[in-house]
Amino acid sequence: MQAVIRRDGRLVVDQMADLRPGTGQVLVKTLVCGICGSDLHALDHYDHMIDLAAEMGGVGQMRKGADTVFGHEFSCEVLENGPGTEGRLKAGDMVVSVPVVQTDSGFQNVGYSSDLPGGFAEHMLLSEALCLPVPNGLSAEHAALTEPLAVGEHAVAMAEPQGDHAFMVVGLGPVGLAVIAALKARGLGPIIAADYSAVRRKAAEAMGADTVVDPAEVSPHASWSAYGVPGTRAEAMMAAMTGAVVKRPIIFECVGAPGVMQALAKAAPAGARIVVAGVCMETDRIEPLLFITKEIQLRFVFGYSREEFAASLAMLAEGQTAYSQIVTEVVTLHQTPEAFVRLQTDKSQIKILVAPGR
Amino acid sequence: MQAVIRRDGRLVVDQMADLRPGTGQVLVKTLVCGICGSDLHALDHYDHMIDLAAEMGGVGQMRKGADTVFGHEFSCEVLENGPGTEGRLKAGDMVVSVPVVQTDSGFQNVGYSSDLPGGFAEHMLLSEALCLPVPNGLSAEHAALTEPLAVGEHAVAMAEPQGDHAFMVVGLGPVGLAVIAALKARGLGPIIAADYSAVRRKAAEAMGADTVVDPAEVSPHASWSAYGVPGTRAEAMMAAMTGAVVKRPIIFECVGAPGVMQALAKAAPAGARIVVAGVCMETDRIEPLLFITKEIQLRFVFGYSREEFAASLAMLAEGQTAYSQIVTEVVTLHQTPEAFVRLQTDKSQIKILVAPGR
Repeated sequence: MQAVIRRDGRLVVDQMADLRPGTGQVLVKTLVCGICGSDLHALDHYDHMIDLAAEMGGVGQMRKGADTVFGHEFSCEVLENGPGTEGRLKAGDMVVSVPVVQTDSGFQNVGYSSDLPGGFAEHMLLSEALCLPVPNGLSAEHAALTEPLAVGEHAVAMAEPQGDHAFMVVGLGPVGLAVIAALKARGLGPIIAADYSAVRRKAAEAMGADTVVDPAEVSPHASWSAYGVPGTRAEAMMAAMTGAVVKRPIIFECVGAPGVMQALAKAAPAGARIVVAGVCMETDRIEPLLFITKEIQLRFVFGYSREEFAASLAMLAEGQTAYSQIVTEVVTLHQTPEAFVRLQTDKSQIKILVAPGR
Repeated sequence: MQAVIRRDGRLVVDQMADLRPGTGQVLVKTLVCGICGSDLHALDHYDHMIDLAAEMGGVGQMRKGADTVFGHEFSCEVLENGPGTEGRLKAGDMVVSVPVVQTDSGFQNVGYSSDLPGGFAEHMLLSEALCLPVPNGLSAEHAALTEPLAVGEHAVAMAEPQGDHAFMVVGLGPVGLAVIAALKARGLGPIIAADYSAVRRKAAEAMGADTVVDPAEVSPHASWSAYGVPGTRAEAMMAAMTGAVVKRPIIFECVGAPGVMQALAKAAPAGARIVVAGVCMETDRIEPLLFITKEIQLRFVFGYSREEFAASLAMLAEGQTAYSQIVTEVVTLHQTPEAFVRLQTDKSQIKILVAPGR
């Protein structure tokens, strides 16, 4: 079968061995698979990711020098039930799954393994037990958004938002927009949103963000006071003296680049809770004294639970969210290496989907 | 009057102008003032602190090139009421105060100001309204511990501990021991405590820490599983599968040196909440990916409220805490510059108090 393979530091389209489902697995045809910001990072910082995984006790199954097929935001069509399956799924069923598959030698991360291909391949192996049928005639393109939307669901849950919070989303890529979708689904606000890209700002507006700014023109932090959050020390002191009811700030960092945490801590109101949902794969530098004197809280979040994943699929299938509008392009396997470059350079892109069968 | 002055990057003992109380102020004689780890940092990183304060909108009143008298952990004797005071205090009363004083030109941080001296001077100016009389015949030495104990009170409050938490205190200087005191005062535990110094470990044991380790010999993180916290990924997985009741980890970082947060994130159980109470005044480096995949939470804390300060004084006065045993030495003003050096080099030290009148 054909796949987009990371080999010697770059992406190539090549043939690879056909797959045979193992115990409890189903063989599926990949319909659509989104390109994630983490895939862009992993292409460039592959060895560093492996080193960190090893330091942490080996969560990854990528190997240095080995081929790896990325892709963990997929929708698929069932082709064949392997041995030991319950027959819950039939050939032709459309499914999604958390990107994990059980094998005879343990769990593998689909899309970050040198043993099994991710979604940028024509076929994949998934665990029958983890597959969720796609309901309501949801399209393959929109079903493939279940995974990135679940990232937003999880980030918002980990933020532990309450009624007296106000929100800022910094970086309006697929993660930032998923956070907005999850906040709106809970009826939470107000939401200040910031990104340098006009296309992304437009998507945030359409999804219901209350104030959307281009940080090149104005600091998003200038909007805090309009929503009742003391943005400066003077405002905080005044509120404390007058007993004014104030809102507390929660910021979602959805950029994931070095320096962003430090810049946020510098500009944020004192006491801000920063949920770090952007995945920065490089070493970062911070000035702890700044975080200390402002009593900043950093909550690093990662992934989602199976329940959050299922909730995201339901949100999409029931049309409860405008998140599906983040798709800016659908490409073939052959167009995928260029699409990776485009996602990094073209600010009018949000989510590019790969359709391996086309 | 005589004072220990930071001048041209080092401490000198010299005469300085006598003080006259302003509106609402009292003139006090400093009885005892503790040397804080922050004073050691401020001696070496003075200009950096000023730069950071300026970046944050100017919380500090230290000026580059100007003399500054440190000292913010003090007990005092009232000498004279200034104009506009209510006469609540009488000459001879022993008082403590949060290290802030109101002046005609705004608030000043006592001990970090180039305008007013801190506690390493024979006299100080305090705000009558902020002074708390020392009750129960508590000694001047022990009353001076109100401030560092309040730091522990605040750190524990900000940790939002619950019954299903287990605790680790890393670094058993005055801050780490104050955290243990505050945890014990709330009846919280178990507490794992770690420090390279035998004297500090002994103090932690005496204050009721459950497991006290020398990290040079054994990792404190090896003790998590004994207290029901899954310390490794395998233990966490097993607990999830068997539905075992587990405890959640809260770690108090009370060292405040570059690299500690990264080392903690590496060794800590997934999901750990790290309360950063150690004040690191240098740039620090972290690997965000490590914090992200383990979903670490960092809560930077600073200072305390007036209520927490008053609660600490009450704890000391009512003999509810063994915290007073942290005092390892009492020195004169002339011995203070050497005491600063000793605190950094002699691992048998915990808290050195300066008694300016002796």
